[in-house]
Amino acid sequence: MTKKSYPLSKVYGLLEPGPVVMVSTQGKTGPNIMTMSWHTMMEFEPPMIGCVISSQNYTFSILKATKECVINIPTVEIAKQVVGVGNSSGRDTNKFEAFALTPSKTKLVQAPLIEECYANLECKVVDTKLVSKYNFFILEVVKAWINSAMKAPRTIHHMGKGRFMVSGEEIKSLSKVK
Amino acid sequence: MTKKSYPLSKVYGLLEPGPVVMVSTQGKTGPNIMTMSWHTMMEFEPPMIGCVISSQNYTFSILKATKECVINIPTVEIAKQVVGVGNSSGRDTNKFEAFALTPSKTKLVQAPLIEECYANLECKVVDTKLVSKYNFFILEVVKAWINSAMKAPRTIHHMGKGRFMVSGEEIKSLSKVK
Repeated sequence: MTKKSYPLSKVYGLLEPGPVVMVSTQGKTGPNIMTMSWHTMMEFEPPMIGCVISSQNYTFSILKATKECVINIPTVEIAKQVVGVGNSSGRDTNKFEAFALTPSKTKLVQAPLIEECYANLECKVVDTKLVSKYNFFILEVVKAWINSAMKAPRTIHHMGKGRFMVSGEEIKSLSKVK
Repeated sequence: MTKKSYPLSKVYGLLEPGPVVMVSTQGKTGPNIMTMSWHTMMEFEPPMIGCVISSQNYTFSILKATKECVINIPTVEIAKQVVGVGNSSGRDTNKFEAFALTPSKTKLVQAPLIEECYANLECKVVDTKLVSKYNFFILEVVKAWINSAMKAPRTIHHMGKGRFMVSGEEIKSLSKVK
């Protein structure tokens, strides 16, 4: 999947609609992935993201130690893999291999990006004040990539209890928001 | 719109898909509303929500003072009002009147709920540690309401720059997430 660099000022538009994302990290034993829905934009530029990663997740300890990850935005084409990644643990599974996902090199962090995702955000942890109480990490997006050939990516959205919907059509009739 | 009480344990499924919401508050001069997309679930039960509300918004000062709000989840039927609320300020507009929205009584907070929204979450601010640095409020949902007649609510999702999409169909083929 050919990707090009994406302006940091436009990153918020990728995450505001609330897609399920996959967080990739580079642990001591190799690359790892988790599936995540609890995230929010916190600042436009540089883009800041707040996200909750349970301390029970393998990713939690890797992220705490390495302070780096990639937020990868998948589309419906790989929905089964996204769910599979969410239902397994990196403690006993190499998820890149198990789900046939391709780790690719990033530019500014050590964590790999997931090639099959249409957008990838290289992130550094910049604030851990709420990690111990809420498992809440604050990330800064330092570099963003997008598959610009994908004009209308159908992102995946969790509705709870393992039910998912895909993003729908654009509402064309609305006036612009400031 | 007839609503019934909704279990707090199921609230996360309403917000995880990333809908645009409207935050209603009760200021000194009357009820107010703002439109918001920067929110995330932080805990299942009691449900906790983290959200960014710019200090430039009128709602910021009301929420800081009253520590109470309602998170209202609109559907595409009132998309124009949602955008209108987002493009105006409560400093000079009574938005309930201007956009023909109906403030209704809540049970555990002073802020009104918006009748026309299919779900309403009565919230109390429980943590303000990141308000000064990131405008980030942590809310606890103390009571939830839903219009249970609406089986497949089409929520609104912001894609940046005033472009919106509606939630799409459910993906039926996936195995359950734990």
